[in-house]
Amino acid sequence: MSITILNEGNPTTPSGWRAATWDCAIKYQQRDDLALLVSDQPCSAAAIFTTNRVKAAPVRYDQDLMARNGGILQALVVNAGNANACTGSAGAAAALAMAQTSAQALGLALDHVFVMSTGTIGVPMPIERIVAGIEAAAKRLDQAHGFAAAQAIMTTDTRPKHAAVRVALPSGSTVSLGGMAKGAGMIHPNMATLLAVITSDAALSPAVLDAALRQAAELSFNSISIDGDTSTNDTLLVMANGMAGNQPIEQLDSPDGAAFLAGLTTLCQRLAHAVVRDGEGATRFITINVRGAQSYADAKLAAMTIAKSPLVKTALYGADPNWGRVLCAIGYSGAEVDPERVILDFGGMRVLEGGLPLPFDEAAATALLDVPQVLIEADLGLGEAAATVWTCDLTEGYIQINTEYRT
Amino acid sequence: MSITILNEGNPTTPSGWRAATWDCAIKYQQRDDLALLVSDQPCSAAAIFTTNRVKAAPVRYDQDLMARNGGILQALVVNAGNANACTGSAGAAAALAMAQTSAQALGLALDHVFVMSTGTIGVPMPIERIVAGIEAAAKRLDQAHGFAAAQAIMTTDTRPKHAAVRVALPSGSTVSLGGMAKGAGMIHPNMATLLAVITSDAALSPAVLDAALRQAAELSFNSISIDGDTSTNDTLLVMANGMAGNQPIEQLDSPDGAAFLAGLTTLCQRLAHAVVRDGEGATRFITINVRGAQSYADAKLAAMTIAKSPLVKTALYGADPNWGRVLCAIGYSGAEVDPERVILDFGGMRVLEGGLPLPFDEAAATALLDVPQVLIEADLGLGEAAATVWTCDLTEGYIQINTEYRT
Repeated sequence: MSITILNEGNPTTPSGWRAATWDCAIKYQQRDDLALLVSDQPCSAAAIFTTNRVKAAPVRYDQDLMARNGGILQALVVNAGNANACTGSAGAAAALAMAQTSAQALGLALDHVFVMSTGTIGVPMPIERIVAGIEAAAKRLDQAHGFAAAQAIMTTDTRPKHAAVRVALPSGSTVSLGGMAKGAGMIHPNMATLLAVITSDAALSPAVLDAALRQAAELSFNSISIDGDTSTNDTLLVMANGMAGNQPIEQLDSPDGAAFLAGLTTLCQRLAHAVVRDGEGATRFITINVRGAQSYADAKLAAMTIAKSPLVKTALYGADPNWGRVLCAIGYSGAEVDPERVILDFGGMRVLEGGLPLPFDEAAATALLDVPQVLIEADLGLGEAAATVWTCDLTEGYIQINTEYRT
Repeated sequence: MSITILNEGNPTTPSGWRAATWDCAIKYQQRDDLALLVSDQPCSAAAIFTTNRVKAAPVRYDQDLMARNGGILQALVVNAGNANACTGSAGAAAALAMAQTSAQALGLALDHVFVMSTGTIGVPMPIERIVAGIEAAAKRLDQAHGFAAAQAIMTTDTRPKHAAVRVALPSGSTVSLGGMAKGAGMIHPNMATLLAVITSDAALSPAVLDAALRQAAELSFNSISIDGDTSTNDTLLVMANGMAGNQPIEQLDSPDGAAFLAGLTTLCQRLAHAVVRDGEGATRFITINVRGAQSYADAKLAAMTIAKSPLVKTALYGADPNWGRVLCAIGYSGAEVDPERVILDFGGMRVLEGGLPLPFDEAAATALLDVPQVLIEADLGLGEAAATVWTCDLTEGYIQINTEYRT
């Protein structure tokens, strides 16, 4: 098995995928804000949705859809600029209209079309312009528009997020996965909910794909934090059309299944990291690794608590080797902890051992932290479990972006 | 029953209480940083401590102390500038030395002296200067030094926090409670953990006092959030010496018990609000009231989730009537919620009903939020339970204070 990362890859990199975009003037001026993504063949599909009790209309539409379509999809329609959330029955009708228009224009069954929206919440959808845009876009589907699709779904993102991977399966075939994501913080006014779409040409069942997606998401999109807020629109979708011609993967714990899972995880991490790097106001990409925990759940809990702490995030903005804030966050995380066993390393330099600070060179430690990519490592000294999460620093830029009046 | 609030009150307002302060040069220049607080008679006492697994030496000392002294105390020694946290066995010895020196200088049993520290963590205590300061301070105990004590425990606080209340008990006696608190954010470098001390001249048992403290704390110090970080040193102590001569309160659910609890809750809320008003970088004091919940736990969870959301706090800094962020926080809080039943009011103006935004006057709503004291109300429409919490806004000032290198 080998995995090749294609940084310039995108959702149309795998075989049999085409995309198109259109300017529906939903909110932004002079840019495409609608994307269609279509497979030449029906796909196995799986999706993960926000856990927020307040769900946008497309999320509710898609949850019903995935419960009735047997895990088969062939197309996605997605718009930026309006999240279609808190829009009542008109919002539900708009989500349905987007699916219906796409299905008709593409000649597909209604239940084979997935719908996503991102942008401002509580604003009625300009559904007539969106319907017209879908009809126009459907006429210019092309393998070349994958990058344009990643651009069309941006909101407060400062750059598009896309990638692809090529996986050599142990059985001999090569499959590809492509993807795009958007997200830079969380909700309204600068609505920047997380949307991510993965396409593939691999052949595998919806059930195997669903299991793979849940594992890959846990180690990628569910292991990042920008501000700890959970949005109304978060959706992660994967669709695989089988056009690579590989022997269908029946088991995730087979050699081919493991290779596919590794490729999917790599791609999801790539996209998730790109989201963190583009975090609102962020100046540093921070990797937090907690090891020596009694369980993975404890390691993840401690790591995510560090990642969410405003005090840790502001200290790292200031390149301050502030071990006290990290130790404190571990202490209140709820994870099983014995303070006298904790070891902390900042940028590879040991700063605390046995619950006591070591006499380290402050200037050297600051230099290790005053870099674009920072590594914080904690060893709890209680077991073998580990988890890694990624976050960004908390800066005046975050305050400024999120203080601005909704416009 | 009547409760009179004395804003200029302090821990020596109740009968039989004296205080003294001293400059031990622990960290700050030219200011007193040590306080002694002593009762003329032994007191019923109760305390609540941080839930952080990383606990400062005085917290560990006091937890053992309260487990063995039968709930009886007569004095408190407290220092600012050094938290005596992450200081190992030398820190434990320092906490003991502070108690021993105080007991000897005051002629009290060791187990009747409580110890608190606040300030930077991971720095050895200058215990010789502290011991000398205790011995000097013990010679000038005075009823007039209550305000000085509130000043001496400050760290990054911009102003001292103190108050007192007078409670007319239904049985005829009048009792007083005084208090001081410190706290402005959380830990190191600008260590600003929460310490609070309540004194009283009421007569009541340690058991009743403990029950009263837990109820009062839930509605005050446990209903505020500045940045969501939980420190290593948080301690809330109450001591009552019985010198008001009231008939001892045997039951909290008696008329006198209820009156005492109301007075204690009022005083604790007063001090807790003062902590929020002095929150690092804060420009607004925000009251969040959630009602219509299925349970108090749900109401509290939803309210605290709103209070902790960086997006809500930055929006309120900008006086932005951003109902979406509040609704979203309720949605991910974990409380039982039906989005279509939620009602939101900002400063008394209805902005959302039945899950849908109302067409409100944005300029008027902004004006209602662009004030020092902001009220956010949510009605979940599911039941009768309610909870109120208090927080502050999140500003560039918070970032600047917490980014600074430890000095």
